[in-house]
Amino acid sequence: MTRLVERYFEDYVLDETGGGGSRTLDQSDVNTFAGLTMDFHPAHVNRAFAEERFGGRLVHGVLTFGLVVGLTVEYNPLAVAYGYERVRFPRPVRAGDTVTATSLVVDLAEHRRPGIGLVTKQYTGVNQDGETVLSCRHVLAVDRRP
Amino acid sequence: MTRLVERYFEDYVLDETGGGGSRTLDQSDVNTFAGLTMDFHPAHVNRAFAEERFGGRLVHGVLTFGLVVGLTVEYNPLAVAYGYERVRFPRPVRAGDTVTATSLVVDLAEHRRPGIGLVTKQYTGVNQDGETVLSCRHVLAVDRRP
Amino acid sequence: MTRLVERYFEDYVLDETGGGGSRTLDQSDVNTFAGLTMDFHPAHVNRAFAEERFGGRLVHGVLTFGLVVGLTVEYNPLAVAYGYERVRFPRPVRAGDTVTATSLVVDLAEHRRPGIGLVTKQYTGVNQDGETVLSCRHVLAVDRRP
Amino acid sequence: MTRLVERYFEDYVLDETGGGGSRTLDQSDVNTFAGLTMDFHPAHVNRAFAEERFGGRLVHGVLTFGLVVGLTVEYNPLAVAYGYERVRFPRPVRAGDTVTATSLVVDLAEHRRPGIGLVTKQYTGVNQDGETVLSCRHVLAVDRRP
Amino acid sequence: MTRLVERYFEDYVLDETGGGGSRTLDQSDVNTFAGLTMDFHPAHVNRAFAEERFGGRLVHGVLTFGLVVGLTVEYNPLAVAYGYERVRFPRPVRAGDTVTATSLVVDLAEHRRPGIGLVTKQYTGVNQDGETVLSCRHVLAVDRRP
Amino acid sequence: MTRLVERYFEDYVLDETGGGGSRTLDQSDVNTFAGLTMDFHPAHVNRAFAEERFGGRLVHGVLTFGLVVGLTVEYNPLAVAYGYERVRFPRPVRAGDTVTATSLVVDLAEHRRPGIGLVTKQYTGVNQDGETVLSCRHVLAVDRRP
Repeated sequence: MTRLVERYFEDYVLDETGGGGSRTLDQSDVNTFAGLTMDFHPAHVNRAFAEERFGGRLVHGVLTFGLVVGLTVEYNPLAVAYGYERVRFPRPVRAGDTVTATSLVVDLAEHRRPGIGLVTKQYTGVNQDGETVLSCRHVLAVDRRP
Repeated sequence: MTRLVERYFEDYVLDETGGGGSRTLDQSDVNTFAGLTMDFHPAHVNRAFAEERFGGRLVHGVLTFGLVVGLTVEYNPLAVAYGYERVRFPRPVRAGDTVTATSLVVDLAEHRRPGIGLVTKQYTGVNQDGETVLSCRHVLAVDRRP
Repeated sequence: MTRLVERYFEDYVLDETGGGGSRTLDQSDVNTFAGLTMDFHPAHVNRAFAEERFGGRLVHGVLTFGLVVGLTVEYNPLAVAYGYERVRFPRPVRAGDTVTATSLVVDLAEHRRPGIGLVTKQYTGVNQDGETVLSCRHVLAVDRRP
Repeated sequence: MTRLVERYFEDYVLDETGGGGSRTLDQSDVNTFAGLTMDFHPAHVNRAFAEERFGGRLVHGVLTFGLVVGLTVEYNPLAVAYGYERVRFPRPVRAGDTVTATSLVVDLAEHRRPGIGLVTKQYTGVNQDGETVLSCRHVLAVDRRP
Repeated sequence: MTRLVERYFEDYVLDETGGGGSRTLDQSDVNTFAGLTMDFHPAHVNRAFAEERFGGRLVHGVLTFGLVVGLTVEYNPLAVAYGYERVRFPRPVRAGDTVTATSLVVDLAEHRRPGIGLVTKQYTGVNQDGETVLSCRHVLAVDRRP
Repeated sequence: MTRLVERYFEDYVLDETGGGGSRTLDQSDVNTFAGLTMDFHPAHVNRAFAEERFGGRLVHGVLTFGLVVGLTVEYNPLAVAYGYERVRFPRPVRAGDTVTATSLVVDLAEHRRPGIGLVTKQYTGVNQDGETVLSCRHVLAVDRRP
């Protein structure tokens, strides 16, 4: 579903949650991502090396990050991504793990430009065992209601 | 090339530069990335919408981010990604833009664990017109020389 | 979003609408689909032939069909796809066209098995000019409320 | 092979068979198809969910359908796809199953337009154990010999 | 079509032709191939560089080679690829070019092992203007009729 | 890394080595390559057939070849690929095998055009057990120092 849903800054509330979807990341996804980004670190694409070293090939942190963003993103045409903070990978994701993502509005702030407010969301990705594998903060610049 | 090159914390020096490679991101890459991450925002995958609104479809910020990481990453088995800070997208990347990435060591710090040091690199992605399209800081935990 | 939402047969009502999302199908998607399905008809993958014959390469009918299904599918764990009827392609889809899909519940019927009802949805795909490019009927076997 | 072979309506005979090729559908194909069509139902892309529920992830019905079409399609420039009828999935296809497809001409009919005839083919897909996993009817509008 | 067709060494004749199929190679195919093989030479994936230097991005020689092989390959279970000779690229292939491939049996020879014969085929790929873009020789070890 | 590095013919020396990188080729890569090149030989894409016949699905020889080229290629804008000789596949590569590639300069020769020299490199690909799976000779036409 890619239907746009307009939401003004005033429509966001603290502690509002979102997301909840899930997807498994397989080795084929890791290979495709390596090809897109040219990150062919042996931890991701060399089975012999990664099995000996990590017990298996690891998913790129930025792929996990992208999936968590994709699973939580709102299609709000009034919001613009300002940036991401504190992107952390507390545990590795292995090929075959299933990631579930949720979002939480943790801050609502003024912006120096009067027509805009800043919405800060905490994104969290967990694996199939409930362990956190990604956390970050996404700051969005959102139009205020005219 | 994916040859591993071992570098200890002591081998990094302030203001050391890296990267320098380039790649064009096409609409097909945007579509593939959308499929991997489930981020099908109309800005990325709806031509009619994006042309009217942005003059064309935009590359996902996280794809640009992943490419900049891929173009600058060292295959250093002694380093572990700690996390990313201040991921910013000063200008949009459009399908067909060419991104060049460079890295700069901006900080070398102690870590509470004695055998490890923290290397902070600034990553910068520029488009074919020399405009910055991505910046972030990557913090790496690197083994100290025994 | 892939969150499951349970709906019993009794939760469906006639004339209920769904879907509404959109996506552009590019030539790269056509090539990928050809590789998955081994349908390399020159109308889809031979530019010289297709430009002379059709004014450009055409999207596989089954890819348009799959996208319309994907844009309208409910993640309802109580429903099982029974089959599709009257899959029609009133106009060709060209590489670069944007397809929007909607669904409409057109029939609710008993099933010979007592615990199940049949929900028939009409799926419609339109291009960026509002012309219908796909229509079909999807019959779902859905659990009745116990 | 994508060589075009011209066949007029009069060249088709009842009970004529075609196809016979095979291909394995892997989880990577399912993931790619999900990305193309935006159908990320957990039955297809959530390993944890699908293993508990179905004993493994399932191939999208429309992907199986597309492969059966691809394995049986004729590259006949005198034929136009009219539509598909009674698309049925008698058994699920699991990632890793091998599908073989055959076609059978089951009807030859007049069309209201004099220069055209309707050829109806029955398509059948079977898995590696010989079980039918897909059946449908494909109606083609084919030029009559001038 | 992937149906196997058994042919013994004795079934091959000098000057026998094969192939004849065609396909367009797009930039998306070049990007995918770069990701598979890690050959990200700027001639293939850097639009700014390649347009200035070559008037556009070039298809990898080995991708053209692979397509010519794919378009001419026989699914003969009695044949084993011995190797390729004199792989030549007389003209560059640009993204968007359409390649047609043909094969010609140019030599039939004894092998030191009595049950086997060597079939040498000349493969030729031409672009949409009829210019040769690839030639090579494929030597196959084929079972003799018992 | 795709940074160009200029090297004149005079900069090459006999017995110079290069490459050294590695990558695992998975079944998903085989399927993607089949889709790009239309080589759907059952040895590569039919699990049931290939397991019975070869103990598993085999990687296309040309994909292994492409990877070995990609892992050893120099981004030297002064060099043009002249062609490949004696492409040999001494052992099959199975899906899941890891290929490491190296290059060795084996010949430096005059060319009939005065400003150019011919550099011949021997490319070798080995699997995770150190067995050679590919060898070929790559002839490059390289500018002489002015």
